[in-house]
Amino acid sequence: MSENAAVDHEAAAGGRRGRGDRGGAAARRAARTGGGPGQQLTYIRRQIKVYEVLDEEGLALIEKNADTVLEETGIEFRDDAEALQLWKQAGADVKGERVRFPRGLCRSLLKTAPKQYTQHARNSERSVQIGGNATVFAPVYGPPFVRDLDGNRRYATIEDFRNFVKLAYMAPSIHHSGGTVCEPVDVPVNKRHLDMIYSHIKYSDKPFMGSVTAPERAEDTVAMAKLVFGDDFVENNTVLTSLINANSPMVFDETMLGALKVYARHNQACIVTPFILAGAMSPVTVAGTLTQVLAEVLAGASFTQLIRPGAPVLFGTFASSISMQSGAPTFGTPEPSLVSYGAAQLARRLGLPFRTGGSLCASKIPDAQAAYESANTLNSTILAGTNFVLHSAGWLEGGLASCYEKFMMDIDQLGMQQKFAEGVDLSENGQAMDAIRQVGPGSHYLGCDHTQANFQTAFYRSAIADNNSYEQWLAEGEKTAPQRANELARRWLESYEAPDLDQGIDEALQAFITKKKESMPDAFT
Amino acid sequence: MSENAAVDHEAAAGGRRGRGDRGGAAARRAARTGGGPGQQLTYIRRQIKVYEVLDEEGLALIEKNADTVLEETGIEFRDDAEALQLWKQAGADVKGERVRFPRGLCRSLLKTAPKQYTQHARNSERSVQIGGNATVFAPVYGPPFVRDLDGNRRYATIEDFRNFVKLAYMAPSIHHSGGTVCEPVDVPVNKRHLDMIYSHIKYSDKPFMGSVTAPERAEDTVAMAKLVFGDDFVENNTVLTSLINANSPMVFDETMLGALKVYARHNQACIVTPFILAGAMSPVTVAGTLTQVLAEVLAGASFTQLIRPGAPVLFGTFASSISMQSGAPTFGTPEPSLVSYGAAQLARRLGLPFRTGGSLCASKIPDAQAAYESANTLNSTILAGTNFVLHSAGWLEGGLASCYEKFMMDIDQLGMQQKFAEGVDLSENGQAMDAIRQVGPGSHYLGCDHTQANFQTAFYRSAIADNNSYEQWLAEGEKTAPQRANELARRWLESYEAPDLDQGIDEALQAFITKKKESMPDAFT
Repeated sequence: MSENAAVDHEAAAGGRRGRGDRGGAAARRAARTGGGPGQQLTYIRRQIKVYEVLDEEGLALIEKNADTVLEETGIEFRDDAEALQLWKQAGADVKGERVRFPRGLCRSLLKTAPKQYTQHARNSERSVQIGGNATVFAPVYGPPFVRDLDGNRRYATIEDFRNFVKLAYMAPSIHHSGGTVCEPVDVPVNKRHLDMIYSHIKYSDKPFMGSVTAPERAEDTVAMAKLVFGDDFVENNTVLTSLINANSPMVFDETMLGALKVYARHNQACIVTPFILAGAMSPVTVAGTLTQVLAEVLAGASFTQLIRPGAPVLFGTFASSISMQSGAPTFGTPEPSLVSYGAAQLARRLGLPFRTGGSLCASKIPDAQAAYESANTLNSTILAGTNFVLHSAGWLEGGLASCYEKFMMDIDQLGMQQKFAEGVDLSENGQAMDAIRQVGPGSHYLGCDHTQANFQTAFYRSAIADNNSYEQWLAEGEKTAPQRANELARRWLESYEAPDLDQGIDEALQAFITKKKESMPDAFT
Repeated sequence: MSENAAVDHEAAAGGRRGRGDRGGAAARRAARTGGGPGQQLTYIRRQIKVYEVLDEEGLALIEKNADTVLEETGIEFRDDAEALQLWKQAGADVKGERVRFPRGLCRSLLKTAPKQYTQHARNSERSVQIGGNATVFAPVYGPPFVRDLDGNRRYATIEDFRNFVKLAYMAPSIHHSGGTVCEPVDVPVNKRHLDMIYSHIKYSDKPFMGSVTAPERAEDTVAMAKLVFGDDFVENNTVLTSLINANSPMVFDETMLGALKVYARHNQACIVTPFILAGAMSPVTVAGTLTQVLAEVLAGASFTQLIRPGAPVLFGTFASSISMQSGAPTFGTPEPSLVSYGAAQLARRLGLPFRTGGSLCASKIPDAQAAYESANTLNSTILAGTNFVLHSAGWLEGGLASCYEKFMMDIDQLGMQQKFAEGVDLSENGQAMDAIRQVGPGSHYLGCDHTQANFQTAFYRSAIADNNSYEQWLAEGEKTAPQRANELARRWLESYEAPDLDQGIDEALQAFITKKKESMPDAFT
């Protein structure tokens, strides 16, 4: 077989068909329809190198510029007198809500932040390392809408929320239950965090994120975590990793600061993330965006150390560009990839775990646009050496919708990345010299001893891709990838079984929620 | 705006819509429907690093193993007495058709092969560098079928062939016209190479590939090139880069050797490429596959130097895995990416230009599967530092079909990669410190001086992606990416204008073709 079709494309097609029939259809059907999602994977420990886009000179330049921004322009800490007071005590120049930082202050404060930490799960086998050579995949975060399994785009409900938690629990390549997998808008806004946190605990045993939409909701999250893990354990370990967005450019607001303070005080981790649509919230250039991102992270992350030295904090960035024609956010384009790679380098130099990327796209449907954009984002996310990957599955429509079908397609891609991150096996078995000697010129490897011994695990096996012949694909109904994903999601949800949860803990959680809900009227804004 | 939707997702949605209306719809429509494909880009000169998956120890191990394969197992050169004679003279151990190579022989022969060369186009502005920091994109090669603009999957014709040449000519991010962009099965098999070569010359002015399906067809290609470039120019320069597949494992056959000898003798470039579906044609492991690939390339590439020292030759690899359940080829999976990265490293150590990858996929339609797989392949192709990228646009269905819609989507991705390869601009304008100072905390960058000065070129602008609001996308007919690609392909083909071709040359080519066609009866097998 070759690429030179005129030589032998008929032979090639025949060969493919021939192999397709070997053992084939039945085994394939069993593999596809049979059972569940397969064995859970632990978080990724990368055996591969990181990819870098900046050299020492470029990195030093951006660091110097970020220090200049912090010193000359400063960052605003809004509506938070305590924060301003703490910065004044730490030696910053505070005028009104504007905080200007002497060169080196933020870096110096960050010396107490851990390079990596363990986020504990209620099932200790699902605990994850965040930082170092670890990469942890968590689902999409934040969408108010879902694209459901009947093809409707509608507001998300608590049932959708539970469904995404269940799917993430079942997905072998999802290591973390995430946070706002979708926004359950059928539950009052001031009470929904209780149902969300309960869902993560009840329907999954993977680690999860806390509420950040108000300081008291963060406190509720910590209280519920204590019912699961115990008071002392929570205060001395980390069981929550939560998302604190900067209000770029160069502002932290009351809501985010409030949540940050709660979590840091209880030794829980914050992902300090400038949410950047470059061209609107940062300069239109990669280097300018990186400068602003670094300045904002330095200010926000070091603030956690003013609250509690040693509290885990991540260097986060959410990088997108905008269409300069329409102002709409764009994803999967070159510039955000460059920002992600560069930011990862800056984070490593700072000694902080890093968060960026995911499977981001602007498309309204799980079509080729969605996939190109997601794959571009995910490939750079992995090669950058990202430690915590939010939005790694299910993201659609610029983050406005959580999509079931895309979730299933994305987790397949995550599985591929996890395999890729193992790198090249150079063991004697990996070298396969015996196989080459045994087979020799002009034969094939399909039945040789080495192939027999390795074929089950040799290649990543997709649950979504159709690799069959055109004729077989026709005979099976000309299905698209999203259609296959749809069937898979339905099968998983039908076969879902909840992990065990201690009955006493469950009752305590429910009692806490009932009491909280009864203590205040419903609010919907 | 932030990812924490409950805080401000309504504001976010409003903000997006607001920006969407600014200047917006008319400009967008003009950009989309207006005119042609935009300015041609010269080939890529990568400003970014390559990504590597093997360290020195791993590379040395694979090189040692490949030398062992060459020495102990050897390579078969089939049905070519001249080749066997040349190898005997060069000091190889020849028994029957099996050639075994003393350690170092092939490497020693390859010292005369150029590290990089210029492939001249008839329009000198379209000439390309192959090797070094250059990356050149060429279209899909080889499919006997097309998926056409009416949604039919059918055998390809010479009209399809011309259409793909025209689209590749117009596409700014395609630097090379390629070769068998599809197989025109409506033309007799022994004559179609004449129409194919003529189409590349007539309908494009980009460099192209020669016929390899028989030695006399390679000779015809060289003869036609001489009508365009002149005899002396062709003998002393390189105007053709052609694809020579090894018949893996460890065989070169008469057809490929015949074409190789013609091209090398005339100083034209050969891409010596083991066409590998790992698990069938090579071991099921990455390291084993790399070992065999290196052995095959060493033998085939060094053979060109026996024919004519100094003739350009590329280290090629086509890497795919097979489904161990069905035997079908798979694409976009982790193992071929690792093979591509590793092979690129081996090629650089050997001092040869490198070819791999493209936009490969197994999907039968241009859906999400096709896009995930293509993007995974293309990302690794670029980061590996690949010099010549065959199959960079239009590949579908494991290479059995050339797809118009996928071609248009892929060239958009190529444009993104070309922008990415420019790396990070660290100039004063790139640093954007004035912008950060001017805007300050809590404002936005949309109207600032720096944005005004840079917005036209700041971000890659996709001709395929829909980044508009959900509501606008609904109003515009809920189009998928392939639907937009379809419209674009039709517009381009309607507005196509052929580049100038000297009338004397055109007539000479047509006379040559007529004479050749009349000299033999039609053959269809």
